[in-house]
Amino acid sequence: MFSFKIISNQKNSKARTGIIKTKHGEIHTPIFMPVGTKATVKTLSAQDLYDINAEIILANTYHLYLRPGEDLVKKMGGLHKWMNFSRPMLTDSGGYQVFSLGQDKGYTKDATFKTSVKINDNGVYFKSHLDGKTHFLTPEKATKIQFDLGADIIMAFDECAPAESSKSYFKSAMERTHKWAEICKKTHEKLLKKSKQSQVLFGIVQGGTHKDLRKQSAEFINGLDFAGNAIGGLAIGEGKEKMHEMIEATVPYLNKNKPIYLMGVGTPEDLFECVDRGIDMFDCVHPTRMSRHGAFFTEHGRKNIKNNSFKSDKTPLDKNCSCYTCKNYSKSYLRHLIFESEILGLRLMTIHNLSFLINLMAEIRNSINSGKFLTLKKNFLRKYQQALS
Amino acid sequence: MFSFKIISNQKNSKARTGIIKTKHGEIHTPIFMPVGTKATVKTLSAQDLYDINAEIILANTYHLYLRPGEDLVKKMGGLHKWMNFSRPMLTDSGGYQVFSLGQDKGYTKDATFKTSVKINDNGVYFKSHLDGKTHFLTPEKATKIQFDLGADIIMAFDECAPAESSKSYFKSAMERTHKWAEICKKTHEKLLKKSKQSQVLFGIVQGGTHKDLRKQSAEFINGLDFAGNAIGGLAIGEGKEKMHEMIEATVPYLNKNKPIYLMGVGTPEDLFECVDRGIDMFDCVHPTRMSRHGAFFTEHGRKNIKNNSFKSDKTPLDKNCSCYTCKNYSKSYLRHLIFESEILGLRLMTIHNLSFLINLMAEIRNSINSGKFLTLKKNFLRKYQQALS
Repeated sequence: MFSFKIISNQKNSKARTGIIKTKHGEIHTPIFMPVGTKATVKTLSAQDLYDINAEIILANTYHLYLRPGEDLVKKMGGLHKWMNFSRPMLTDSGGYQVFSLGQDKGYTKDATFKTSVKINDNGVYFKSHLDGKTHFLTPEKATKIQFDLGADIIMAFDECAPAESSKSYFKSAMERTHKWAEICKKTHEKLLKKSKQSQVLFGIVQGGTHKDLRKQSAEFINGLDFAGNAIGGLAIGEGKEKMHEMIEATVPYLNKNKPIYLMGVGTPEDLFECVDRGIDMFDCVHPTRMSRHGAFFTEHGRKNIKNNSFKSDKTPLDKNCSCYTCKNYSKSYLRHLIFESEILGLRLMTIHNLSFLINLMAEIRNSINSGKFLTLKKNFLRKYQQALS
Repeated sequence: MFSFKIISNQKNSKARTGIIKTKHGEIHTPIFMPVGTKATVKTLSAQDLYDINAEIILANTYHLYLRPGEDLVKKMGGLHKWMNFSRPMLTDSGGYQVFSLGQDKGYTKDATFKTSVKINDNGVYFKSHLDGKTHFLTPEKATKIQFDLGADIIMAFDECAPAESSKSYFKSAMERTHKWAEICKKTHEKLLKKSKQSQVLFGIVQGGTHKDLRKQSAEFINGLDFAGNAIGGLAIGEGKEKMHEMIEATVPYLNKNKPIYLMGVGTPEDLFECVDRGIDMFDCVHPTRMSRHGAFFTEHGRKNIKNNSFKSDKTPLDKNCSCYTCKNYSKSYLRHLIFESEILGLRLMTIHNLSFLINLMAEIRNSINSGKFLTLKKNFLRKYQQALS
């Protein structure tokens, strides 16, 4: 069971609202999806996720494949049952992690591989970051792993080339991604035939930082008729302007009646800019990670709780925020918790930052529905960026 | 506002139930009090503490005095407001931490001090574990700090001598503790006169591992007419048998109409044995600390979630437990979280272990009220200790 229905389109913008329906519930788009790498959104319980109105969360195939292994998760009844999370879930394909790991270890733009990652047209050899053991991940295997993990939405296995790659390398990575997308689709169709699982597969557009490649990739992936389409290989160091340019070069070639998911993007500014360019789904580890370093969002920009000025500040992180943290705790106490590396502090900061993005998205959806998205965008960014400068 | 009323006495036992009333609410005794060292019960929010029915929690004066300092907490409205915890609280005097820190650094049984702790009759010089800076803590100062922190119950400043001290050293530490108890009482009375604070002071019995000293100390401390009396200097390595002997040598000399608090004790076995000997209040860091190492209580003894047999175990930590963790998560998932050092795992284990002790105490109270404590004790310990052996 999977459907996508558009509710509203914003005039003079590509922004739109919609509803995705899955077996595990509805997702209102545009949506920000918290990342639960190892089958847990760091610091939060299922109840916490319901309380902050997270309608869908992610888990990472790469991490779960290495430990505890998809077999265990399958045996335990799949991700939803194991994590006790009853709402929709999405898994990535592991591609991004495999390649970003490779980059760290010497994966270079001209595709000479110094160490752990070796690619051929059938798949990728990589070494586990846990024990150094070599694994071979293929589009067939990445699809089967995700099938076993059992999320509502799974992703095709793609090659995510580094931002500084040569055009010819971007092109060959894209072509491999296309070939793999076809394999993932066929593999998934076969797996579904033998089961009662309700699960859909999204394709991923690549093409690096080149408009013509992005167009070519969008047309190809769109032609494979996935349940939804994603834009991969951005937000990896190419710069905001280039990212916007690539989104603009991609979206027009994707079916408007399917959700469009921009992978790995999710600062407040990004949400506005990319919703405006037609994006329906976002994910990003940033808000969970920054929480653990004491950083937090406010409508007046990003701040850090370690700042000395918050030492005896009795006010909440953001006076307009309705999250558990802001309703119950002062900056002074949160600052103490973060300074003392107290676990409660990490959780309270995470609750606030995810709430901020989820509530911002609800506000964005309301503004689109009432035709006022562009005004909201202008006002928000002015206030938010003034504070940053 | 402070009162203590006895509800029931168990026949053939010193076990009794009672109610302590404070400005911040009622405490049903016998009670287990979770420890919130740095003004946070590690991993738990105020809501979590309400959900597990924690009726009172502790905070540590030593830690809060060093950082962030009692001045800040006072400025923020006191511990309750700062932590946003509306139920009763107790602070220790810092004595135990000062001396246990000293022990680590060479505090010896014949009272020759190799490094950081130097005692005289006026107070204690010690070095901060944070920055090595020397501090001088006196009974006056320990009382003033606790007054400023603002808990409902505060403790007299005592000298807690190591378990292996000579009798003559235990005696002089006890005598110093008595002198300091008088000072604490006078200091607190003066502070209260100038304020509207609702706060009571408990005395602490010392006397090491000697029955005659314990009797002498109990009589002296009891004579000072504190709101409640505590037994200190136990559970520091003297052994269970000796601990029970010392409790038995102390309790008869304490006013039965006041609560009796055994400091730093709190395994399930201890709760039964010491309630049986007349103890009303307990605290212990053990259940919060063990949670972070994957250990957990069950009615069949203590176990560790890292055990390989739990890898694909779909059952809760304890099938009879009603806590959030047991109602929602399997051993398999908890094991994964603990192996991955995921913060959610630490919190879920803490919720279970504290719930276990708090629920056990409720069961103990019910059994005393219905005259069946000794049967419950026998049955529980048989099941619990069988599993351990």
